[in-house]
Amino acid sequence: MPREITAYSNPLVKRIRNLRDKRHRREEGLFLAEGLRILAEAEETGVLPLFLFFAADGAGHPIVRRLVAKVEAAGGEAIETTRDILHKLSGKDNPQTVIGVYAQPDTSLDRIDRATSPIWLVAQALRDPGNLGTILRTGDAVGAGGLILIDDTVDPFSVEAVRASMGALFTQKIAQARWPDFLAWLRAGPGLLAATHLEASVDYRVPDYTAPTFLLIGNEAQGLPPEYAAAADIRVKIPMLGKADSLNAAVACAVAAYEVLGRIQGTRLPID
Amino acid sequence: MPREITAYSNPLVKRIRNLRDKRHRREEGLFLAEGLRILAEAEETGVLPLFLFFAADGAGHPIVRRLVAKVEAAGGEAIETTRDILHKLSGKDNPQTVIGVYAQPDTSLDRIDRATSPIWLVAQALRDPGNLGTILRTGDAVGAGGLILIDDTVDPFSVEAVRASMGALFTQKIAQARWPDFLAWLRAGPGLLAATHLEASVDYRVPDYTAPTFLLIGNEAQGLPPEYAAAADIRVKIPMLGKADSLNAAVACAVAAYEVLGRIQGTRLPID
Repeated sequence: MPREITAYSNPLVKRIRNLRDKRHRREEGLFLAEGLRILAEAEETGVLPLFLFFAADGAGHPIVRRLVAKVEAAGGEAIETTRDILHKLSGKDNPQTVIGVYAQPDTSLDRIDRATSPIWLVAQALRDPGNLGTILRTGDAVGAGGLILIDDTVDPFSVEAVRASMGALFTQKIAQARWPDFLAWLRAGPGLLAATHLEASVDYRVPDYTAPTFLLIGNEAQGLPPEYAAAADIRVKIPMLGKADSLNAAVACAVAAYEVLGRIQGTRLPID
Repeated sequence: MPREITAYSNPLVKRIRNLRDKRHRREEGLFLAEGLRILAEAEETGVLPLFLFFAADGAGHPIVRRLVAKVEAAGGEAIETTRDILHKLSGKDNPQTVIGVYAQPDTSLDRIDRATSPIWLVAQALRDPGNLGTILRTGDAVGAGGLILIDDTVDPFSVEAVRASMGALFTQKIAQARWPDFLAWLRAGPGLLAATHLEASVDYRVPDYTAPTFLLIGNEAQGLPPEYAAAADIRVKIPMLGKADSLNAAVACAVAAYEVLGRIQGTRLPID
């Protein structure tokens, strides 16, 4: 039976609300995801929340009922609550009817099995949680295995990143590593490291990408450090015809990733 | 000589601060842009602010000095102020050292000369200002002429949209129109209307896009209304290999726009 919580002062409400803060997320090893769509996608991937908060007025929804049953069967806790408390937990004016509290997965590199996917996305020093989530969503779409985060990066488990990922946080593997450790891991197995780099001379549509390709994207403001780009197998640029000197990082990642996908699938001929 | 304003209560500060609100922007026909990079890009395009606010401690910067001189020569007003007031105007914790107040351009469709560019972006009922700005930035990169906003859309002159556009708001033409008016305008001249549509059966890499191509993107949550997609000359989809059923709107726009660009430039062969 779901427990009921209607008081702001409830200690669990306070504890979960604190998960909007990175330090608390790390200490607890937990994170928040909101909305029926994302929670249902997590469930499909076999991931259930440890705590499931749902609005009393949404309790009859078939997905909510299924989630409640599954969470309780798995030893988690389902909690019926008010819209006000959901608002407090999510920080949004129009909170979703469900919020799940999930265990953070292990993000060590050695969890990545590169043989499982022809494309892996690699992002260096990302700062914007919306970009990070959008890159995860793109990774899911191009059939990438996951996202490897290099150096100090915005937290992939922030509410904004989870929201922007639209559920892809649960379908994509996530790893975090310093650059030298990533490079050592990469070179210990097969893989083409392709860096998008503004100073590259090769158009991104030219190379013959082979699986697995690791597509490396730099920080939003600075792009890739030159020595990181130099360590890649190939450096490619996306043509810029206008006055702007760069694309949004998530956009650049997607344009390049779809090109890599087309070439690996063999549906694309190289241009001169 | 720049005027100096150091008091929060100054009526001009109040008036400009109100421009963060859409109603005031519309009534005044003005909008805000922040940061040396964006203001310098506007200047390069020949667009100067009516009011230029700059931090006293940044007054010696060569770009600031040039902007001050140009704004004053053009009959605008340059205003030296404090970081606190810049913070109040921008709403950001770390405000940029310059803020410009610009006149909103006329956004009627008849200002668009389709012959000036091989690609035009068209977005329907966009809701997220970050997506709108990112689409403008992509438009600049692919050499698009501008962005045509269909139906009720987030304000392209919001602070968030201007910021995400990274200056492309000044290089891209912007038009706003209802769907029937857009369609009538479009059909009065040459142009291929290509809709990205989740239910399309044609891969986006197949069609032979011709200039000018109008690339139509739907709302973030619902995608394009079926009757809008039906009115297009071609409907294309971007393959989705994962669990997610759509891409971020700005990402989908960029992936399709770069494909259109490659085909129009003739550097791309169609796939089967």
